[in-house]
Amino acid sequence: MARIVMKFGGTSVADVTRIKNVARHVKREVDAGHEVAVVVSAMSGKTNEMVGWCREAAPLHDAREYDTVVAAGEQITSGLLAMTLEDMGVTARSWQGWQLPIYTSNAHGSARIADINGDELIKRFKERGEVAVISGFQGVVKETGRISTLGRGGSDTSAVAIAAAIKADRCDIYTDVDGVYTTDPRVVPKAKRLDKVAFEEMLELASLGAKVLQVRSVEVGMVHNVRIFVRSSFDKPEDIDPLSNNPPGTLICNEDEIVEQQTVTGIAFSKDEAQISLRRVADKPGVAAAVFGPLADASINVDMIVQNVSSDGKTTDITFTVPSADYARASEVLEASKKSIGYESVDGATDVAKISVIGIGMRSHAGVASSAFKALSEKGINLRAITTSEIKFSVLIDEAYTELAVRTLHSLYGLDKA
Amino acid sequence: MARIVMKFGGTSVADVTRIKNVARHVKREVDAGHEVAVVVSAMSGKTNEMVGWCREAAPLHDAREYDTVVAAGEQITSGLLAMTLEDMGVTARSWQGWQLPIYTSNAHGSARIADINGDELIKRFKERGEVAVISGFQGVVKETGRISTLGRGGSDTSAVAIAAAIKADRCDIYTDVDGVYTTDPRVVPKAKRLDKVAFEEMLELASLGAKVLQVRSVEVGMVHNVRIFVRSSFDKPEDIDPLSNNPPGTLICNEDEIVEQQTVTGIAFSKDEAQISLRRVADKPGVAAAVFGPLADASINVDMIVQNVSSDGKTTDITFTVPSADYARASEVLEASKKSIGYESVDGATDVAKISVIGIGMRSHAGVASSAFKALSEKGINLRAITTSEIKFSVLIDEAYTELAVRTLHSLYGLDKA
Repeated sequence: MARIVMKFGGTSVADVTRIKNVARHVKREVDAGHEVAVVVSAMSGKTNEMVGWCREAAPLHDAREYDTVVAAGEQITSGLLAMTLEDMGVTARSWQGWQLPIYTSNAHGSARIADINGDELIKRFKERGEVAVISGFQGVVKETGRISTLGRGGSDTSAVAIAAAIKADRCDIYTDVDGVYTTDPRVVPKAKRLDKVAFEEMLELASLGAKVLQVRSVEVGMVHNVRIFVRSSFDKPEDIDPLSNNPPGTLICNEDEIVEQQTVTGIAFSKDEAQISLRRVADKPGVAAAVFGPLADASINVDMIVQNVSSDGKTTDITFTVPSADYARASEVLEASKKSIGYESVDGATDVAKISVIGIGMRSHAGVASSAFKALSEKGINLRAITTSEIKFSVLIDEAYTELAVRTLHSLYGLDKA
Repeated sequence: MARIVMKFGGTSVADVTRIKNVARHVKREVDAGHEVAVVVSAMSGKTNEMVGWCREAAPLHDAREYDTVVAAGEQITSGLLAMTLEDMGVTARSWQGWQLPIYTSNAHGSARIADINGDELIKRFKERGEVAVISGFQGVVKETGRISTLGRGGSDTSAVAIAAAIKADRCDIYTDVDGVYTTDPRVVPKAKRLDKVAFEEMLELASLGAKVLQVRSVEVGMVHNVRIFVRSSFDKPEDIDPLSNNPPGTLICNEDEIVEQQTVTGIAFSKDEAQISLRRVADKPGVAAAVFGPLADASINVDMIVQNVSSDGKTTDITFTVPSADYARASEVLEASKKSIGYESVDGATDVAKISVIGIGMRSHAGVASSAFKALSEKGINLRAITTSEIKFSVLIDEAYTELAVRTLHSLYGLDKA
């Protein structure tokens, strides 16, 4: 017997037929003796419909009212799933954020979960064998009693936070992919599904992970040590063995649980990058703040930052990346700050890509990055910039070489499917 | 300065364009210095859509989950209207049943309002000039914290109950008719809109009134003495004078407020009636219970009941009406109870109609009914049965004569438009 949270996204509950399918997934787990909390999103398309109404009603709308409107989507799904389960003979009840309650910050539209009391749910598991069907994405602000939402994709975070609150053995995220892959299978057909990924790796896998589940949910999982299992919602409910020790999917967990550590876990990449280089910047204390302060004030996200030690002790070059969409705006900001920063010239490029190699094993293996540099140079791929961290290194290259670089590194680190 | 409740139904808030129109109605009243609470229904069609999903999910669904699902409709409208008002510069916020809270009984799906605390709303009127946008139709069960709904049309009752809670001067019901008429204008084109109707009359106007607002809301208005004003939602918001003492519409109020009492206020009729007569029923104590007990057990609503004093002291005839739809079932019930009741034969007809003449003035005017009997007989209309109450009398006639009878009585009592 285990205690599990099962999370289903909007596509999985798009209509009543699919909600019935979800109910069969839930019933399977209940029949196997598990204690189950289900977290659901709004029916696919409903949130967009409601967001559209909000925009039409008021271009600059009150975020509290926006939350009131869009939270209705999850409310509908939770009620429908609860009644479907009851119709199948499974004891169940729906819970809205304010009923549980799921307390959040008052940052309406992108609130953070502050506190969930799981005692009532646990009591009902024990006393009635009752399945909790919980509206994801939403909560309530304790101080005001207003409905809040966590922002798009927030149901993943709801699920993991609820799993932490009820001390669940596992949080199953049912999604339209069957797990996390070593890289994007559309680029590298030989990409393999990972059985296990450490939380830290999952956070660094960014571009790969973002398609699978909300980054914030991984952070919550890491802090509260909630085992997150990404699995397919397309499998027939009855084809899944609820007692299997190794069901198909990817477990995101503490690294201690990963016995056979690979040096490299996955290769992520992003073409949505632009490079900006400031030439002959005065090499003095406070120059980095002078450069990145105005960009932060303009809400421009800076990613890779490379600054070399100056050769002459007077000036240096600073290179960094920003999202392609912000390139023009970033250039303007830098132009406006030219005097306060003090640089000679600025140049940049939008036809660049960032390739990241991620693996916890890197920490204890030397030469992981250097073998990559060698392999890429053998393919004639020039490295514009390099950054490294404990479990990841990234290179910035010409965008045209993206696929070649990813495939080369994927083979290099033995990630290709047998 | 007045304190008013404004209630808008599903048609008035069917899309964002119409919600903006509603907001203009509200702004007009706010600009005139009034304190305003608005009660809204779900967008037209949305409730039906959600009810359809519930039926598809589970034919016999848990009423608590049904309420959770359908209450989402009003939640969406209240949020959209609040943000629209704010966009127009009107301070506003939405309130769900559980937020105010509106406590109800736990009869999910047809709950009754038990208690509303209006203090917070009044405080916000005074301190912030804030418009309260309240979801109609829904409430919360105090003991369980579950969402409840009042049943179809319940938003009218929400509005009147909220008006009572905040001691409003008036509860304006904006609807697709511009008031209550002396009879159905489709039958009698000369029917006039009534300026004022007493609560008791409105309750008796049943068939006429039901198209205008929920009967339960009139009961609540009568108990708490809430002046209910039925008015058109089609009037252009800016064409209405918010300070007028005599705006177009019908005021439902205490009879004290109606200075010029008419003897007859209106003529109601219903073709949805069936007549059943039990012949030679033993005239002994308990016979009425023997007849109507089994019908009540079968949830068949009995309306007119006529029982004459028996001429021989032994047997009598009992005639009553039931809804046409229940006629066959009622006949079966009576057949099954034939022994316990003790009657000779049963006959009936479904091609009958009930015509009701309503007027508080009747109490102090003799001969009101007899003039009707005379007028109808002059037209050759046979009266199958007659019942009377303090402010109403009804006759059962052949259905074919319905329109003729209504027109005849409408003229007789001087209700025709000048």
